[in-house]
Amino acid sequence: MDQKSLTVGVLGPKGSYTEQAALCYFKDCAIIDNYLSPQDIIEDVSRLVIDYGVVPVENSIQGGVASTIDALIKYRVNIVGEIVLPINHVLAAHPKAEFFRRVLSHEQALNQCKDYLKAEYPHCALEPTASTSLAAKIVSEKEIADALVICSEHAAKTYKLKIIAKHIASTNNNETRFFVIGNSTAKPTVHDKTSIVFGLIDRPGALYDALGVFKKYEINLTRIESRPTKKKLGDYLFIIDFEGHKDNEIIKKALEELSSATTFIKILGSYGIA
Amino acid sequence: MDQKSLTVGVLGPKGSYTEQAALCYFKDCAIIDNYLSPQDIIEDVSRLVIDYGVVPVENSIQGGVASTIDALIKYRVNIVGEIVLPINHVLAAHPKAEFFRRVLSHEQALNQCKDYLKAEYPHCALEPTASTSLAAKIVSEKEIADALVICSEHAAKTYKLKIIAKHIASTNNNETRFFVIGNSTAKPTVHDKTSIVFGLIDRPGALYDALGVFKKYEINLTRIESRPTKKKLGDYLFIIDFEGHKDNEIIKKALEELSSATTFIKILGSYGIA
Repeated sequence: MDQKSLTVGVLGPKGSYTEQAALCYFKDCAIIDNYLSPQDIIEDVSRLVIDYGVVPVENSIQGGVASTIDALIKYRVNIVGEIVLPINHVLAAHPKAEFFRRVLSHEQALNQCKDYLKAEYPHCALEPTASTSLAAKIVSEKEIADALVICSEHAAKTYKLKIIAKHIASTNNNETRFFVIGNSTAKPTVHDKTSIVFGLIDRPGALYDALGVFKKYEINLTRIESRPTKKKLGDYLFIIDFEGHKDNEIIKKALEELSSATTFIKILGSYGIA
Repeated sequence: MDQKSLTVGVLGPKGSYTEQAALCYFKDCAIIDNYLSPQDIIEDVSRLVIDYGVVPVENSIQGGVASTIDALIKYRVNIVGEIVLPINHVLAAHPKAEFFRRVLSHEQALNQCKDYLKAEYPHCALEPTASTSLAAKIVSEKEIADALVICSEHAAKTYKLKIIAKHIASTNNNETRFFVIGNSTAKPTVHDKTSIVFGLIDRPGALYDALGVFKKYEINLTRIESRPTKKKLGDYLFIIDFEGHKDNEIIKKALEELSSATTFIKILGSYGIA
């Protein structure tokens, strides 16, 4: 497959962690970086506006990305790949900057680096932006001379900012898991995972019975998350990731059996483990 | 108990849905409304700075409030009550306003009312604020004449704004569930719920076995949610709500048995069902 012609949608602006994840996975492709939300990317994949999309699904500190899960439930697309990216924030600034009055970054990044900032830049005001790469873009394009930026090394280089410090977060093991979204289905590899979503029949023990199917077939669950059905409080859908490919005979049998405990099952995709 | 002297922390500024929930529950109390996050409220309850706190825990459209769950795991406090509040947004403006160029509100509220805004105010720019009550406060205090606000009727009245339209959200059944947080424990009532958090022993089927304890004792689960342990990707804690009070003999037995499938259990509190 000639990847040169592939269009891949990522969260913008240019320099985002999502773009970095996409570049790890696709090597050579045309990045479309004007997306503001995972939902917009997934919708455009479903409408064939772009070939693939890369969206964050889960972070080791923050947890699940609700808007990604909701859009995967809503649109007809497939998860075709998984990427895990270490999140390493750096402190950067415009090359002309000398004195700093404020720090721009996404609220979560500001929070993860607050101990460092309190110790090294106690006089600086914290100014939340919609994303880490947007902070880098603003400071670069407006040539802001009094602001520090917390962003990825990738974003700092993208916007030609000077890197002042590395390893500034007090949280270790900060990783984000991304899904690659497409319209095809991924063929089985040596080691696959499958993601599904289902609704439970409204009776006590329905979730227990559903999980029992996985135990019976010795299928290893790697994640379970609940999301509201948006119909009423206390009514949930469950998103489950497990090891195995949907074309595998055992998985097929298990999914068939699972339907007796569920109101519906949607297979979100099978993909090689990152 | 003389509720007049009680101090109750809520998310600010004045007029928030959280304040409204607190006023429903406590009738007469001293509201402390300068909190920016559920974590700050819960921390101040644990440090005895305030008697009680009210925090959002779950919304029927958006799902769980991660920062509340994380703070309940971290701090030594008890859930002592539950409140369910219908979320009804109204469209409001400064009484002097005549022509509108923009709409201020929380991103989620803007999103929930976007169909209405597109139909009635297509020329208006959407400007996200940190909360719906902050939008009302800004427009009121700065006497902004060209902005609409989406907020609760309570917030509009609090800031003496003129209500222009009601029932503007395209999402029905929008409800938020709040927890009342304190340092005491709530005595059993006719109909109680208990919330716990636990970590699972790292072996296949551990969650299934944990849920099996609830099935065995015929305890009705009302909610299950997972949160990252923040140690590594793929490592989760589970937060479970179920019917019954922790002082009930059956619940005591079940929790004892549950410990064989879990690395730890923390009882977050037992409280009367809303």
